[in-house]
This record gives sequence, C-alpha cells and structure tokens, in this order.
Amino acid sequence: MAQVSLDELNKADKTAFVTALADIFEHAPWVAEAVFTRRPFPTLALLYEAMTRAVRDAGSERQNALIKGHPDLAGKAARAGSLTIDSKAEQASVGLDRLTDDEFESFHRLNDSYRSKFAIPFIVCVRRHTKDSILRQFDVRLKNDAAAEHKIALAEIFRIAAFRLDQRVAAPDHLKVNGRLSTHVLDTHGGRPAEGVAVELFEIANSSTSALVARALTNANGRTEKPLICDRPIPIGCYELHFAIGDYFSRVKAPQSDPPFLGVVPIRFSVAEPEGHYHVPLLATPWSYASYRGS
Amino acid sequence: MAQVSLDELNKADKTAFVTALADIFEHAPWVAEAVFTRRPFPTLALLYEAMTRAVRDAGSERQNALIKGHPDLAGKAARAGSLTIDSKAEQASVGLDRLTDDEFESFHRLNDSYRSKFAIPFIVCVRRHTKDSILRQFDVRLKNDAAAEHKIALAEIFRIAAFRLDQRVAAPDHLKVNGRLSTHVLDTHGGRPAEGVAVELFEIANSSTSALVARALTNANGRTEKPLICDRPIPIGCYELHFAIGDYFSRVKAPQSDPPFLGVVPIRFSVAEPEGHYHVPLLATPWSYASYRGS
Amino acid sequence: MAQVSLDELNKADKTAFVTALADIFEHAPWVAEAVFTRRPFPTLALLYEAMTRAVRDAGSERQNALIKGHPDLAGKAARAGSLTIDSKAEQASVGLDRLTDDEFESFHRLNDSYRSKFAIPFIVCVRRHTKDSILRQFDVRLKNDAAAEHKIALAEIFRIAAFRLDQRVAAPDHLKVNGRLSTHVLDTHGGRPAEGVAVELFEIANSSTSALVARALTNANGRTEKPLICDRPIPIGCYELHFAIGDYFSRVKAPQSDPPFLGVVPIRFSVAEPEGHYHVPLLATPWSYASYRGS
Amino acid sequence: MAQVSLDELNKADKTAFVTALADIFEHAPWVAEAVFTRRPFPTLALLYEAMTRAVRDAGSERQNALIKGHPDLAGKAARAGSLTIDSKAEQASVGLDRLTDDEFESFHRLNDSYRSKFAIPFIVCVRRHTKDSILRQFDVRLKNDAAAEHKIALAEIFRIAAFRLDQRVAAPDHLKVNGRLSTHVLDTHGGRPAEGVAVELFEIANSSTSALVARALTNANGRTEKPLICDRPIPIGCYELHFAIGDYFSRVKAPQSDPPFLGVVPIRFSVAEPEGHYHVPLLATPWSYASYRGS
Repeated sequence: MAQVSLDELNKADKTAFVTALADIFEHAPWVAEAVFTRRPFPTLALLYEAMTRAVRDAGSERQNALIKGHPDLAGKAARAGSLTIDSKAEQASVGLDRLTDDEFESFHRLNDSYRSKFAIPFIVCVRRHTKDSILRQFDVRLKNDAAAEHKIALAEIFRIAAFRLDQRVAAPDHLKVNGRLSTHVLDTHGGRPAEGVAVELFEIANSSTSALVARALTNANGRTEKPLICDRPIPIGCYELHFAIGDYFSRVKAPQSDPPFLGVVPIRFSVAEPEGHYHVPLLATPWSYASYRGS
Repeated sequence: MAQVSLDELNKADKTAFVTALADIFEHAPWVAEAVFTRRPFPTLALLYEAMTRAVRDAGSERQNALIKGHPDLAGKAARAGSLTIDSKAEQASVGLDRLTDDEFESFHRLNDSYRSKFAIPFIVCVRRHTKDSILRQFDVRLKNDAAAEHKIALAEIFRIAAFRLDQRVAAPDHLKVNGRLSTHVLDTHGGRPAEGVAVELFEIANSSTSALVARALTNANGRTEKPLICDRPIPIGCYELHFAIGDYFSRVKAPQSDPPFLGVVPIRFSVAEPEGHYHVPLLATPWSYASYRGS
Repeated sequence: MAQVSLDELNKADKTAFVTALADIFEHAPWVAEAVFTRRPFPTLALLYEAMTRAVRDAGSERQNALIKGHPDLAGKAARAGSLTIDSKAEQASVGLDRLTDDEFESFHRLNDSYRSKFAIPFIVCVRRHTKDSILRQFDVRLKNDAAAEHKIALAEIFRIAAFRLDQRVAAPDHLKVNGRLSTHVLDTHGGRPAEGVAVELFEIANSSTSALVARALTNANGRTEKPLICDRPIPIGCYELHFAIGDYFSRVKAPQSDPPFLGVVPIRFSVAEPEGHYHVPLLATPWSYASYRGS
Repeated sequence: MAQVSLDELNKADKTAFVTALADIFEHAPWVAEAVFTRRPFPTLALLYEAMTRAVRDAGSERQNALIKGHPDLAGKAARAGSLTIDSKAEQASVGLDRLTDDEFESFHRLNDSYRSKFAIPFIVCVRRHTKDSILRQFDVRLKNDAAAEHKIALAEIFRIAAFRLDQRVAAPDHLKVNGRLSTHVLDTHGGRPAEGVAVELFEIANSSTSALVARALTNANGRTEKPLICDRPIPIGCYELHFAIGDYFSRVKAPQSDPPFLGVVPIRFSVAEPEGHYHVPLLATPWSYASYRGS
C-alpha cells in the first residue's frame, strides 16, 4: 500500500482517513475512526499515542475481538493464502511462509496448545524476532495465565501497529521501531584503523545452521560504509560477525605464523532489544583481540 | 611394542639393541646397527642425534632406499593391512584409516601426482597434522623441486623417528615432540577467576565440520585441571574454543540482557607449531571479552 | 626474639612455653598461660585459635585491660623509646617512627580525640596499612560507637597476634598473614612474553609523593623472578606499577612513532586485602594496552 | 593583527596585499610581493603553496637572510621586548617568556652552541612543541651538518608560515596546522557508555612536573562535549589522561573493594604528530581496563 503523508491525513475527509489507516490494527478500522476527531496530529508519535489510547479505552470485549481477529502464526491461513497483506509480509519476513513440514507441524501444535489454554491466537510482532526466538516465546508464554497473556497480546499488537504506522505514514518524526547494528575494526598492532577487512554477519539458529545477513568491507576509518543492519528492527536472536583479520594482517605484512594464529575471528552475540543500537567493534593484533558492546 | 629403558639399551647385546630400535626408521634396522658401537648414550637426545647423524652420513643411495621404504599415505597398503605397526597407528591418529571413498580417491590422486613427479612416496609426520593440513602440504610440496623434496622427506622421517623413539624408550629426558594447549577464564566483571565455566575444544575442518577434541570445567583458579592437549603434538590446523560464559554470568547473578549478549564465546585460532605451548585465555564480562596467545 | 618450633613448644615446660609466647598479646602473658594445658597443638592454626578463644572467653574486664595495654600509635612512648620490641618494629614498618613534626602533631591530635571518645588507645594492625590508610581508619572509626570500637580493637589485636605468632613459631603450617603482588608482561604485538621490561612499583601517598617499593626486570616468561611483594602483607593503600614498554618495543624493533606513543605505562590500583593475591599483568602493543586484576 | 579574507586579498592593491602578508615570513615582505602577480588564489592552500615556492626559488642568499632574520628562541630579544608580534605570541605559547633563570641560561647556552656551529639562529615552529621537546630538538639537531640544518630551518619556517597564514586569512579552506585529542569512556561492566566520568588532561614534563591542560565530564554517550584539544596543534610531548573511574563505579553501584581497586586511571602517552588525530578511549570495569590509539 502506498505511503501517505501525515499532512495529507490531517487534511483528509473521514473516509479517506479511515481507509488509509484501516489496517494499522488487524481487521479493526474502528481504531482509526475513533481518533479521527482528535486531528490534527502534529507528529506521528501523537497519532500513534491516540490510536493505542483508543484501544486501551475500548473495553475488554472490543479488545478481545481485536485480538481474536489476528491469524495464527504460520497457520493454515498462511498456507491457504487468506492473510491480510500486512500479515503476509510480516510472516514472510521471518521465514514463516517457508517452513518445512516438520516446522509447520511444530508451529501448528504450539498454536493449538496456546489457543486451547487461552482461547486467543498467539500474537507476536514477528518483525522483532527470528524463528528461534518465536519458539522460545511460545515456551515462556504458555506458562503465563490468561490475564498476563491478554496484556502481552495487546502490547504485541501495539508493536505491530507502530511498525505498520511508521511504514505507512511519512511524517517529520519516526516511531522507534528500528535498530542499528554496526562495527569497526582497529588494528592495534599498527595503531590505525584496519582498512579492507572483509566482514560478514550471520544469523545463527539453534539448529546450528547459519544464514548470511550482510557482508561489507571496512573503509579507511575501519568502518563499513553503512551499518550492517539499519532501517529495520534487529530480530531477537543469535548472530556471528566474521572478520577476515588474517588476510588483513597478511596484506599489511605484519609477521604471522603459517597458518596465521588468527584467520577469521568470529564474534558471537545475541540481540535482546530489536530497536537498540548494537555497536560491536573488533580490536586486533595478529595474536590477540577484544570485542565489546560499544556505543 | 613394549617400552625399553635407555639403561637397558646401553647394556643390551647387539641383537637385542637392534631389535628394539629396528622400527624407529621404517624398514631400516641398519640405522640402529650403525650407532651400536657409539654406546653408552647418557640421554635420549644423544641417541636420537646419533641415529639421525647416521642417516645423514649414509649417502644418497641408502637415504633414497630409506625414503622409498615408506608406504603411501592412506594408500593401498593401508586398506590391504600390510603397514608396519607404527605406520598403521600413525595414519590412524589423523583418521587416514577412515576416509570416505571420495577422500580415498583424492589422496590416491595426490600420491600418484607426487610419485610421478618425484619418484618417491609423499612422506609427512602425520602426528603433527590434521587431514586438512596434510592436503595443504601436498599443494605446497608438489611445487618444489626434487632436491628440496629429498631434504623435506628426510626431515619428516627424522620427526617420525623422534616421535617413535620418545615413545619406545624410557629415559631421563624427553625429545621435544609434544605440545600443550591450555586456557584459563578470568571474570573481569567480578575481578576473580571464573569457576565452573564449561569449555569445549573443537577441531575445525575446511569442510566446515568440527570434531570435539576436549571438554572441561574451569576450577576455582579459572583453569582446567589439566591442559586441554598435552603429552602429544597439537596437530597443525584450525581450532575453536567454546566458553559457556553466559551460563557462568547467570550463575553468579551478573545483570545480563535476555537472551544474554554473550552466551557461548567462540575463540577460533590456528596452530602452526605442534610442539609449541599455546595458552589461549578468555577475559570476559557479560558485555565484552578479550583473548590472546599467552604464555 | 629467636624463632621457636611448634614441636619445642609442645614439649616445653610451662615457664618456657609462657615466656616464648608472652608477647604475642601485648603485655598479656596470661593468654599463653591459659592455653598451656590445651597442648599439644598439631598446627599453628590450632594454637592461634586457642589463644584467640582464650581472649574471647576472658570477659570484658580482662579484654579492656588487654586493649588498654597497647601504646598509642606514633605516640609519646614511641618518641621516648619505651615501646615493646614488637610494637617498635611494627610502628617502624609503616614509617610511624619517622614522622615530620606536623604528622606527629596530627597523629597526636587524632589519638587524643579517639581516647577522649572511647577511653581506649586507637589500635590497628599497622603492618596491614600505609600511613594514609591509618589516617583514613581514624576518620572512619571515630564515627563508631564504643561497643563497635571494642570489637574492632579486639579484631585488630587478633591480627597483630597472628602476625607475631607466625613470625615467632616455626610450624608445618602458616597463618594467613601475608599477601602477594605479582605481574607479568605480554607482548601482544609479537605474540610472546615480553622479556627485559623494567618494572617499578611505587606506593602513592595522598600527598602525591611516591616511594619506590620494588624494581625488577621481566624474564623470558614475561614474569619477574619473584613476586614484587611476598612474605609480608601488602599494606592497604594506593600503588603504581610502571612498565618501560617503549624501551622494550624499541629493543625488539617494533615500529613506533618518535617519541613512542607509549613510553612508560603506569597502572595505578589500590590494595584492600593485605593478605590477598594481587596479580596485575600488562598486555601491550606499541599502541594499546590492557591490565586487570588477574589470578 | 585583524583577520583578512582571501577574497579581500585577491581584490586588494599591491600595497594592501603586501602589508597584510608582510609578517607571514619573519622580516620578509618580499615573499608576499613575489606572489602578488600570481593572484587570484582560489584557496588558502594555493596561496601557501605559492609563497613557499617563492622562498624555495629565491636562491640560497635570500634564504639565508630569511633564516638569519629570525630571533633566538627564548633569547635576549625576548627579554628586551624587541620581538615581532607573531614571534612574541609564539614563544609565549610554550612558556619561553616565563623561563626560570636556570632555564634561560640553558636556552642561552644551546642557542650559542647552535649559532657557533651553524652561524644561523635555531629555528623551530614552537607551537608544535613543549619546552621538553624543544630541548630534545636542540640535542638532535646539534648533531646535523650545516646543509641538513639549512633544510630543516626552511621547513620549520614553512610550518611557522602555515600557522600564521591560517590564522591571518579567512578562507573557504584551512591549512593542516591543527590536531585533535579526544576520548570516550565505555563501561564494559554494565555494557554502556560511562556518563559523568571526570576526565583531566595533564602535560607531563621531564622534570616530572605536570600542568593541567583540560578538564571535562563525559556525557550520556561517554564522550566529552568537545575534544580535549582542537583548533590548535597538539604540542609534541608527553601527556596523562586521568579518568575518575572509581567514583563513576561507586555512583552506578557496581560492587567494588574498599578502597576501590581502580580509583583514578592514568593513561600516559606521547604525541609525535601535532596535526594528528589522537583518540584515546578507556574501556573499564571496576577490575580491568584497556586503552589504545583509536580513530
């Protein structure tokens, strides 16, 4: 769906306004309707605040309807192709549309357990997750009681809405829905930034398979031209940065053993805040290195 | 074959002496014979020195015969079971007796290339190598000329002999044939050794498969009870140490994110000197770590 | 006073036993008397335990007499030369016998404040302290109430007694009265221990003057031949280690700027546990370094 | 003297042009005259290039006159008040106008030795130096031959000219005459920037006295609001950064010993390139720290 500007929304008639924002909350155009009279919204943050307030104030019956309007994760609707456009894109982002039959079975079983315990679908803002962290969420949340899950479901719906709203509406401000993952490499053997180091970022799944997420070369400042991840959340999960530091030190002719003591340096870390800034640098000599969560 | 003491060797008659040392050089009891009159040998190092001297002084014809007396690596003799006991054990140590058919073909081809270029078998002290580093040796050495390979073949034979001699003969001294790989873990968040950290050592093959080599828990000093590798050479190759530092920091109740920023820390490094001391420690907080080749 | 062995003490008659241990507690031979019948003591720790138990069980009147039997720190008795031999040596160890007139005045005033508030002399095990930390002790302890100070005075007397006992009696075991301060230097530029690095240890006083405590050269393992401090407590206080790392890197011909970025590296740290093991290593390249409390 | 814009210079008549630039080279308005016809200069770099070219092309006689037109460092002219305005400010910047009698004597003797060997005054761009590094320059340069010193004198005059030109003329570009010294502090115990850390920068003289150069507090990003040194060269010399990290860790309630193991962390380093960027960060826990020349 095309972007619309906040300015246009502030000037639109009610039908246009509601149509534009009908899908921010799944199958719930009434949320857009509820905030129409509150215009103008000088910032996207205030529009978002108004819409979530409307849901909070709507009473538990309407909230329940909203919750129940969500599809199962990786459910039959997905296979049958009957998802909303947004849901479809969201589920695809984390690979829920490409499950093996075993994985499909597994999600199916978890969805059923969840539904039979809480009588609502399992809702999670998938853009903030990897397949592994969603499975971990099932484990954790199946132990909650119904009241807690009602709250969590709403919170996840608000996260989904923030993400959709930030994409749909061009505004002077942005909602805090994206994270940033960056690195830099310092050659503490030569006392200078390490230029031309090949850097790869992998997502590591529990099942030990890993998927390449980004690849870059460091520039003269030891940094990559742009962050390895930006303009999107960093899915909760485990990652490995690989730095081809042995090749770098060969190129600058630093004395090394054969084979070099350090060839590719892997830095494995987990992301807990998808909207956070993760700066994970490498300080290296041919015989030592350090890394840390920087700023 | 049972161990014999240096003292016994110094007192033995010629037949017993030569029998005991007949296999130090492959199919070449004449080396033992040549040094019999040089007794007594106060140290193993002097016996070894005398035997290698005898080979060096023997002239190129005898040296060639010695070289040609060695079997192919992972060759038909191995499959046919006609290796000497020592060769069999040595080739098994690096897995050359358990090759897949593809690997067997590959070794077969390399052996043939080597033999057709140099007219001698490819000789390498396999106890100092991994399968990967042997394949890399083929690549490097196939580019040499015959004179260089004659020299290298003798040098490798001397390494094999040192290894066999050190195992066969109990003496006050040891030949320098073994390496040591050790680690320790320091908790720089709490300012103390990290106790109870699970440590695993893997050998990493080019083909990306990894084999568990050792597993240990750190003690109250942050060290493992004994080195991860000792009393044998550390095969030339690539390794990964895995430190379960996230579990450790959970246990000592250091504040961490969920999931922890650092769960398992992998330290990947290569060994170039199988007889060297490699101390590879980890200094860690929940948010940073450093490692280095220490002493 | 000459050392006596635990064995001799276990066999001695009462007079000899009491004479030998009369001064362990200041002007209080009754403590030795009290434990005479408890012999034999298989270890020094058990003898120490018995003597401190005797004081604990002696009732507050005797305890008060014991406390009051101690001289003022840096007091008139010191200037007049009327201290016990042990007290004299102890006060000299921290320089209390060489105070300037200003310092003497200052101690005098603090002693008087303390005495007028608590009616007992200020007691501290001076071997565990620097002049600065004793002054800080006055500050802290002057804020306590009398009951707390009674307890602390006894605890300090027990520390003094442990120290005296460990020096007086040769035994299979040692009381935990000594600390150890050690270092090592690793050249992470070259991947090896740094040999021949000049190391100096200074005690840093609040008044900004610093006194050289020890000086050493690192050996081939990057360590000093013996710890910088051992066989005595490490006085509570502030220290600086100076490593002449610029000279070292010049010698091994590592590229450096002129003047070198790192010449002398100072590591400043404080000691809080005089009986602790402080290992403070340096990992350095010409452009970076790290230090930590190690083990 | 007031600034003039490059634009004004490009439009000025010859008298105004030469007057404005008469003092860029000491007592040598002919340099400005020589480049007048080469106008317009689109950048300051091109004006500077033209002026230094004019000196290079002027022949050794004029060069010698230029060199000899410079006053002695810390010489009688300084005491007598007969320096040019620029020379006076330059010499004052490094304290040459506030020498003790001993220092004055020492400079006097070195000046005389230099003059009697080379028959020219000792010329150095003092803004790039500390008193210590100037004295070291005397030592080094007194060993040169006359030809080398002629070259060095010109090079230093060019540096002085660059500095004066960059200050005198407002232009779209800047000459590379200034350096930058910055820091940041990372709390690797908590995994975040360290906010509110007091940082002090001292210049350390050989004579062991130290002068406070800058003082700052780190902000929420662990950085100081502006670099500790910028908009001027960083004088060649030795510096110490002091980080009050113990106070910081007390404030964030990280467990520490009493006194804290790390109170004030000193980082001592030397600057060799006054126009360089020196970034000297601190990564610290209560028990460990690291620093390096960063970027």
